[in-house]
Amino acid sequence: MQQADQSGLRDAGRGGTGEGDVFDLAAEISRRLIARDGEIYPLPDPHRVEAELDLTPPRRSQPMEAVSDRLWRLLERTPNTSGKRYFNQLFAGRDDAALLGELLTVVANNSMYTFKAAGAQILAERALLRHMGSKVGWADCDGAFTPGGSMSNYAAMLVARDAALPGVREHGFDGRPLAMYTSAESHYSIRKNAGMLGLGRDSVRFIEADADGRMRVDALRDALDRDQRAGVTPVMIVATAGTTVQGAFDPIRPIAQVARERGVWLHVDGAFGGTLLLSPKRRHTLDGCELADSFTWDAHKMMGVPLTCSVALFRNRALLQRSLDESATYLFQRDDDDYNPGVRSLQCGRRNDALKLWTAWQRHGDEGYEARVERQFALADHAVRVIEADPQLTLVKRPQSINVCFEVAGADARQVSDLLDREGRLKVSHGAVDGRPTIRLVCANPDLSTADIDEFFAEIRWAASQLRRV
Amino acid sequence: MQQADQSGLRDAGRGGTGEGDVFDLAAEISRRLIARDGEIYPLPDPHRVEAELDLTPPRRSQPMEAVSDRLWRLLERTPNTSGKRYFNQLFAGRDDAALLGELLTVVANNSMYTFKAAGAQILAERALLRHMGSKVGWADCDGAFTPGGSMSNYAAMLVARDAALPGVREHGFDGRPLAMYTSAESHYSIRKNAGMLGLGRDSVRFIEADADGRMRVDALRDALDRDQRAGVTPVMIVATAGTTVQGAFDPIRPIAQVARERGVWLHVDGAFGGTLLLSPKRRHTLDGCELADSFTWDAHKMMGVPLTCSVALFRNRALLQRSLDESATYLFQRDDDDYNPGVRSLQCGRRNDALKLWTAWQRHGDEGYEARVERQFALADHAVRVIEADPQLTLVKRPQSINVCFEVAGADARQVSDLLDREGRLKVSHGAVDGRPTIRLVCANPDLSTADIDEFFAEIRWAASQLRRV
Repeated sequence: MQQADQSGLRDAGRGGTGEGDVFDLAAEISRRLIARDGEIYPLPDPHRVEAELDLTPPRRSQPMEAVSDRLWRLLERTPNTSGKRYFNQLFAGRDDAALLGELLTVVANNSMYTFKAAGAQILAERALLRHMGSKVGWADCDGAFTPGGSMSNYAAMLVARDAALPGVREHGFDGRPLAMYTSAESHYSIRKNAGMLGLGRDSVRFIEADADGRMRVDALRDALDRDQRAGVTPVMIVATAGTTVQGAFDPIRPIAQVARERGVWLHVDGAFGGTLLLSPKRRHTLDGCELADSFTWDAHKMMGVPLTCSVALFRNRALLQRSLDESATYLFQRDDDDYNPGVRSLQCGRRNDALKLWTAWQRHGDEGYEARVERQFALADHAVRVIEADPQLTLVKRPQSINVCFEVAGADARQVSDLLDREGRLKVSHGAVDGRPTIRLVCANPDLSTADIDEFFAEIRWAASQLRRV
Repeated sequence: MQQADQSGLRDAGRGGTGEGDVFDLAAEISRRLIARDGEIYPLPDPHRVEAELDLTPPRRSQPMEAVSDRLWRLLERTPNTSGKRYFNQLFAGRDDAALLGELLTVVANNSMYTFKAAGAQILAERALLRHMGSKVGWADCDGAFTPGGSMSNYAAMLVARDAALPGVREHGFDGRPLAMYTSAESHYSIRKNAGMLGLGRDSVRFIEADADGRMRVDALRDALDRDQRAGVTPVMIVATAGTTVQGAFDPIRPIAQVARERGVWLHVDGAFGGTLLLSPKRRHTLDGCELADSFTWDAHKMMGVPLTCSVALFRNRALLQRSLDESATYLFQRDDDDYNPGVRSLQCGRRNDALKLWTAWQRHGDEGYEARVERQFALADHAVRVIEADPQLTLVKRPQSINVCFEVAGADARQVSDLLDREGRLKVSHGAVDGRPTIRLVCANPDLSTADIDEFFAEIRWAASQLRRV
């Protein structure tokens, strides 16, 4: 990328540093990372790791070799999310096709506000939004890629707010009391977003869940009645398809009926569970989702696409743009705004989060995702069998999806999780179900075998035995 | 990544597709992309491009070869932002070190909520926030990486809102009239964010700019006085360091004095111009920025890091977390929340936007960025000399930074821009300065030579002659 210059400008400050091929270097380090797929780095406390590394940007430039050494030391001290020992989050593993799409997204580096700036990448994004909308059950729909499930929920809640309270976007709130309804098991972004949107965190009514972690529809009706009597304006209902800890699915059809009766917006947070729409066998878990007004779906969770890849989908085409459009003539040039997603985005400059999913979907097809979901469920089923066969392990709830929550006799869930993390054995999260501390195994990585799940439980037993000894 | 499986699960649905090396394939396609650095694809209208491509996800899986062919057809029809013919946005070019950091970010795929989930990557992010804060003039500061300059402004405006109106996050707005102040030349995200935050788009007072596009401090005082007399509560002042069209810098020190007198939050939107803090010679352009309460700075613009890389920085350490924290025990585990940036983020799951900048800064050092800024300014100076030497070109304003706004005699700015785009000659934006249509040349790519700038103007003259002929 280096070139002659007639102005006498110095070479320093150029971006193309001309030292060998950056792709060779990236591939070499990537292969070293992947060679560690069986391991996880033991993480001592952050202060110690900080002391081992020299992180502050230097005053002077350094040769690329020194930089790549430092980069490796840092990556070495990073949890390996794609290997056999990562069960900590709702994502895991690595998908080659998605990775290819994402690496090329980075190299192409287009900003997704306009067709002028991003060309055909805009069209791939549109095709995906339509395809995902069709899986929700909408022949025509609107939507946006956002930087994560919380932000997709945010976009949906923004549009719901503006639909329930016309004029708020222009003139602000008038002070009337407001309410929104979600299950006690819903994601923390619901209340956080209510705070950001000016609805107030207090306006969130956490509706009791039943024994399976699903929103109780009778309790929802009661809460709506109570607020109606008190003169409180209902703004939206948020149902969850796949709760974070238990993986529970709220009963969407009856909730949608309540929403329709009351004229209240229904958002479905399918960040985690939306992917079940790709399995004809499991779609019934989200029965009625086509009756919702908006839908969140993260492809970086069960679909295995690199972080982040989240969409907010809307049944009605006009509303998203109404909540987000600002005229900016220096930006929105030449084309029909239908092809300028910047007028329907939370952001202005925006990286392309769609191309990785587009590439992966081209590779796997709908059928590949169907098979992927079945693999994830089969691994979870296997985990349940292991737990049921072992008297020292107890299933806390029968799983509704790929989260398996369990206890170990005589060992605290948190302590088990912490010990395995500290020692670099594996990463798994702990949580609480009905106030009971549990270990949460998420079977998100379809490249694992049942033997890997067996190995997971061997580590759990090891940790428990260590803790009992203390 | 393929492995034996004892459960009889089918191979379909696996992520590791086991067909050769995805890194070799990515490198091969990347080199093809880079070989086009002298060209830009002629973009006909989106409907035609859409018809040329088969974009909908298929039902069945396809071999990787077919997928990479489709991917290439799509990338071919994408504007080349890193080559010699891209002047359309506030970013351009390609930085090898930043690219290396970003490619490895993708491969590592860690989510940046907790130290448990992202390890040393959290520490690199912290080191950068501190370093960038020190450049603003803050020995200690708080901050967050956000998905773009608009969202950094959003985070700052959220915190400003919650500082001015205690209780809003919890209880919502009480309906009292509010006002915020920004220049008529400021970025469109200010008003857009006011709508999202519940402040109301109407609450934004657009303060007149002077002949150089800088906010008039006397007009700001007048607007504050008028609102005070009318009983309107002032929420924040937003100064701009580097406006989008002209690249103008508001006079921060006198604005900060007004903000301090009135006890109003001052945010500086340095998304574009913040990088001038890295040039000791040009830092005076942002004189007084250390008196602000918050600061937006995009590294994906003048610093040449892949999209997106934006920070919101805060002088006071406690406020960001107060506006964003939600307890979520299943997530925030084990460590001091000081090392869990999820409690200070707009998002929950979050990709690492910091590692590319960390890698690039390690490579170039502070001095490299100083030189980079000088190269960008030298190219803009050269462009000014070309314009002044050509009677058919007129400078619309003397540039304050690397934006050069000019007119061509006898040819409409928009038509020139559109023709060059349609024909695949180059990408350049048009805008309006004081109501006059102008072409906006942004000299953001330090790898260009003065000969490339000469070539840019040759194309402008060609387009103008074509249009005059019609």
